[in-house]
Amino acid sequence: MPGAGSAETLDVIVGLFVLFVAAKLGEEVFRRIGQPGVVGELAGGFLVGPYALGLVAPGETATVLAEIGVVILLFAVGLEIKTDQLLQVGRPAAITAILGVVFPMAAGAGYALLTGKEPATAAFVGLALAATSIGITSRVLADLGVLDRGFSRIIIGAAVIDDVLALILIGIVSGAAEGDLSVATLGLVVGALGFVALGFAIARRARGVRREVFTWPLFADTPLVPAFMLMLGLAILAAFIGLAAIIGAFVAGLIVAETEAQDEIEHEVKPLASVFAPFFFAVTGAQLDLGALLDPRLALAAIVLAIIGIVTKVLAGVIGARSAGRWGALAVGIGMAPRGEVGIVVVTLGLSLGLLSAELFSAVLVAVVLTTVVAPIMLNVVVPRAAAESDAAEGREPATA
Amino acid sequence: MPGAGSAETLDVIVGLFVLFVAAKLGEEVFRRIGQPGVVGELAGGFLVGPYALGLVAPGETATVLAEIGVVILLFAVGLEIKTDQLLQVGRPAAITAILGVVFPMAAGAGYALLTGKEPATAAFVGLALAATSIGITSRVLADLGVLDRGFSRIIIGAAVIDDVLALILIGIVSGAAEGDLSVATLGLVVGALGFVALGFAIARRARGVRREVFTWPLFADTPLVPAFMLMLGLAILAAFIGLAAIIGAFVAGLIVAETEAQDEIEHEVKPLASVFAPFFFAVTGAQLDLGALLDPRLALAAIVLAIIGIVTKVLAGVIGARSAGRWGALAVGIGMAPRGEVGIVVVTLGLSLGLLSAELFSAVLVAVVLTTVVAPIMLNVVVPRAAAESDAAEGREPATA
Repeated sequence: MPGAGSAETLDVIVGLFVLFVAAKLGEEVFRRIGQPGVVGELAGGFLVGPYALGLVAPGETATVLAEIGVVILLFAVGLEIKTDQLLQVGRPAAITAILGVVFPMAAGAGYALLTGKEPATAAFVGLALAATSIGITSRVLADLGVLDRGFSRIIIGAAVIDDVLALILIGIVSGAAEGDLSVATLGLVVGALGFVALGFAIARRARGVRREVFTWPLFADTPLVPAFMLMLGLAILAAFIGLAAIIGAFVAGLIVAETEAQDEIEHEVKPLASVFAPFFFAVTGAQLDLGALLDPRLALAAIVLAIIGIVTKVLAGVIGARSAGRWGALAVGIGMAPRGEVGIVVVTLGLSLGLLSAELFSAVLVAVVLTTVVAPIMLNVVVPRAAAESDAAEGREPATA
Repeated sequence: MPGAGSAETLDVIVGLFVLFVAAKLGEEVFRRIGQPGVVGELAGGFLVGPYALGLVAPGETATVLAEIGVVILLFAVGLEIKTDQLLQVGRPAAITAILGVVFPMAAGAGYALLTGKEPATAAFVGLALAATSIGITSRVLADLGVLDRGFSRIIIGAAVIDDVLALILIGIVSGAAEGDLSVATLGLVVGALGFVALGFAIARRARGVRREVFTWPLFADTPLVPAFMLMLGLAILAAFIGLAAIIGAFVAGLIVAETEAQDEIEHEVKPLASVFAPFFFAVTGAQLDLGALLDPRLALAAIVLAIIGIVTKVLAGVIGARSAGRWGALAVGIGMAPRGEVGIVVVTLGLSLGLLSAELFSAVLVAVVLTTVVAPIMLNVVVPRAAAESDAAEGREPATA
């Protein structure tokens, strides 16, 4: 019961505090050395977790906050995407997205099968390498000031499509891993496509829905609480039809994104995300058994998977986005390389289903993290050339500084 | 682990969803019939809880969210209070506050002792009736548009003082209830006063502290995350020295309230409070065994305690704030009558310490809730007369409408 001051309460609060501070200090250190903050949050969680300092062993409480964190995170991602952006992306974005999911899934799963893993495990390894992290990609492009360029729009469009594909694939692969692969899988495919298609259709009709639709209840001083209910409700509905709860949260975000309340809700969800998302990355980091990488075979697996992850996305970009020019297509490919939330969700799901061993979990997670760390460094080299190339093609003056 | 889609995850999300929706629907119904929303949140939690429909039995997860909710709530209360307001309140506010804590504590505890309860139990019953709810009081005054009147300022000043007194008393009484009553109690008194005095002194020195003090870390896009860390950190510190964690959260709010980041943090804490505070009230309501009130003796106890709660506060106001005029002093007394968060925290703490039986818990909780429901109705009658009285005294034109 919510009694303030009991010994268990104190333990819980101390554990959460340590995880939160570790995640934020990790983010601080990594950002100061020019690396993505999300990698620092993982590192902070790892550092205080049971495989390093052992200060915190995340229990049910931290796990619940982590779960809430990732649901809010995917809701926030959906909130940033307009269905128009999904529809307006042309051939290059669609081809890049599809190849960018097929290539890493095939190569990752193929590598896993070659090293003697079971098909279900191999599917998870491939799936973990499939989805680009929209957050990381768009943050890098914004930092470099090139969000308005053609190749940037291809990256964002393709990242949206590949996220939806990956979210559907998570439902299919996890459902298939849990049950039989025939009727249940078909039901899942129909259910997943139906859920996403219906959500998409609702989002299309939600266009311009007035703020008052959210604020007519007296309890709704702002649109946040009804939107939060929609998020939880669709997360539950998604889970009931066999999809991951985060898909429902993402679809809820897509729907709200079309309404007139989008701006306000996006603004109000930010504090929720900044308080709860760190728990997801910290708890995930705390599960990272880096000691397993002292095994040279596992270290090799992580590096091979990271190289597969980057090369396959680059290939997808070079083929799919060749209309963006030589450097532009390369920028698209590298821009698609950072993996993040979705990849981490997939390996965590695989671990909880017993399909990934702790060692393989760590190897794949390190590979996912490596793509996130390496891609921004590569983008720093390629993007300026792609921008110059597109300037030259359009006869534009090169941007000063 | 934070795997999306596992059966336990789904159960957890469904339970939280039901509690949240019940709280908000309860708030909606109660506000539509002109009653305080907080009472509706309690009712909603009761309705879906184990003593009514039995849809939800709040487990560790809901309890943790409830705990986080009340910590954020007290942080938000502190955030609305400037130390100047605490210092500028004159004699009437101080006398009203002190009498308004002493009278109900003495009468409530005396009643409990007379009915054969043990001293520690009696102390909790009295303490539960001691503290005015700032939130409810100020919301009622704002709704009636009289926040700028003299009696309103006395109410707010007195409510602040009586909240601090009650918070210290919670630490003392709960510490005394758990340990021996001699050295430990003295240590608690010194610790509690020292903690609050030190927090107050820091808050005084925090005046005008620049926003940059919160936003220098790279992870701090806004001041929220560092403020959240301060809140959790002081909540832990308070708990370590034997106080309730919520006192630390309140002091953190007082400190932040003085800084230049106050406005922004208050704005960003609101979404957190609107998502998490309902869990506190819903979980509390779910613990309410209303069936126990079918026992006429317990029903009598609840009504007697509610009358004690209202009469003692009115008496304190009439004596302490007589400078505000006849109706003004009455308005002060009734304005101090609504109990809320703190009273609920006290009875919940008493229950978790095993000092209140489930039946007595319910009786006290109903009494606390009755003061909250009755006071706004009485204020609707008294406040307009008090306003007219103060207009006449100051030679002001009566406000139109």
